[in-house]
Amino acid sequence: MIILDGKKTSNDIKSEIAEEVKKITESGNRPPHLAAVIVGNDGASLTYVGSKVKACEKVGYESTLIKLPDETTEDELLNQVEELNKNDSIDGYIVQLPLPSHIDTQTILMAVDPDKDVDGFHPTNFGKMSLNLPTFISATPSGIIELLKRYKVQTEGKNTVVLGRSDIVGKPISILMGLKTNPGNSTVTLAHSRTSNIKNLTLEADIIISALGIPNFLKEDMLKKGVVVVDVGITRVPDNSEKGYKIVGDVDYENVSKKCSYITPVPGGVGPMTIAMLLKNNLKAFKNKHSSCF
Amino acid sequence: MIILDGKKTSNDIKSEIAEEVKKITESGNRPPHLAAVIVGNDGASLTYVGSKVKACEKVGYESTLIKLPDETTEDELLNQVEELNKNDSIDGYIVQLPLPSHIDTQTILMAVDPDKDVDGFHPTNFGKMSLNLPTFISATPSGIIELLKRYKVQTEGKNTVVLGRSDIVGKPISILMGLKTNPGNSTVTLAHSRTSNIKNLTLEADIIISALGIPNFLKEDMLKKGVVVVDVGITRVPDNSEKGYKIVGDVDYENVSKKCSYITPVPGGVGPMTIAMLLKNNLKAFKNKHSSCF
Repeated sequence: MIILDGKKTSNDIKSEIAEEVKKITESGNRPPHLAAVIVGNDGASLTYVGSKVKACEKVGYESTLIKLPDETTEDELLNQVEELNKNDSIDGYIVQLPLPSHIDTQTILMAVDPDKDVDGFHPTNFGKMSLNLPTFISATPSGIIELLKRYKVQTEGKNTVVLGRSDIVGKPISILMGLKTNPGNSTVTLAHSRTSNIKNLTLEADIIISALGIPNFLKEDMLKKGVVVVDVGITRVPDNSEKGYKIVGDVDYENVSKKCSYITPVPGGVGPMTIAMLLKNNLKAFKNKHSSCF
Repeated sequence: MIILDGKKTSNDIKSEIAEEVKKITESGNRPPHLAAVIVGNDGASLTYVGSKVKACEKVGYESTLIKLPDETTEDELLNQVEELNKNDSIDGYIVQLPLPSHIDTQTILMAVDPDKDVDGFHPTNFGKMSLNLPTFISATPSGIIELLKRYKVQTEGKNTVVLGRSDIVGKPISILMGLKTNPGNSTVTLAHSRTSNIKNLTLEADIIISALGIPNFLKEDMLKKGVVVVDVGITRVPDNSEKGYKIVGDVDYENVSKKCSYITPVPGGVGPMTIAMLLKNNLKAFKNKHSSCF
């Protein structure tokens, strides 16, 4: 059994990016610049955004964090988005989700310039991904693809079962795994809340990507030997630790891992990959813009 | 066994559209207007475009056919597209495919204003479809959905197997059938050229949508009793008729139909639905534009 080590892999990617940034600045260019907008004071969101900013510093990016109060109106946020679209010194930016309920998330995401949409949430980028055109693929699904790629996990002709059809994980990874690409070329089944026979599906799967957010959903008796398991679940479960919780995945890791050829741990699997892929998308945005230099 | 009669259903839809157009013009508005651009003299393409124009007349649309010579350059075609984007009297338009090989199809499709893209080929519209947002869904997949809807075929919780992953049929219908919609909510498996176990999949399927273009691929021994079969295959096979060919689907209809609960014939199944759905998309484009009136 081989652990798909997201922590190590994401550090490798960050080092590669830092290397590129060094070359960029040494050749007299400004470093890539990523901005993040956050509305309100949600603790988890602030933590996420904070680690994105920290990661920017680590690879040598410039970063800008725009904190807006909870009572920001949709129009005010749209103006902010418009400013970021126009600001030539910013290559890419994200609007941290969730937004307060009085703001329509889709309206905001649609207003982001697709060429700066390093989160890959704009429908244009989602469509390009589905049609296998150059684009920004959102961080979690592209993190999974990158992990499979770096560990040379065979996907062609394999049965891949994706559990969960969210717009940011299940749906895009189910599309990516079926594209005529490597990794890809899998026969993909997308299972969800209305699926009646999940165990039948997982028992036939060579690769399982679980993005349900149900702790310990995937058990040993649901899998065949040699399966590849990618666990995207991140659920906070209360415990007696200092933080008061621990992060638990969708997979009963201790028992499932014994049957696997490859498996991602939680934490330390897909999670750390997401920030690395966000940084990678922003490098791409920078290069697209300065294409004459590269 | 019930035949999913695409010819009858498409005529029903056209009648409904004609009814709406009548109301539109009676209330003093101009009728919806669809344009089609064709480059070159490909016989089959001219026939397709011709029947689209004829269908426009039938429902009371205005239509414009723009025929460009085979030697039209990419830039010239882009100019034509730009003109159509700007022309306020045209609600929607299509660029008939295939284009001559010296023109990059993707470049042209990307230039079409997504709000006039009644073929639903623009990545923005593909992305919106995938994210279940209001959009134009391309004619063949939306024709399949409409057929299933009108015949009240149950799709929720069913195992749907889609054969073939083309950008215009297999891929979009596999996404649509898995959305949280009705029809939809299926557990969808997308099979393709690299799938090793097609028969295993089809034997477990409640619904099979075949878009391979391989005559008589789907045989009786590959299915379970009561299956729903949608045949999107349209292959011209030479015969002794006056035309010199006949249209053959992916399904061995005579034997397969005996095991089905529902089946689409070829011809007369999905084929006729496509033009009806194109007209429906154009009505939507008209209404979007004149939203104050409706």
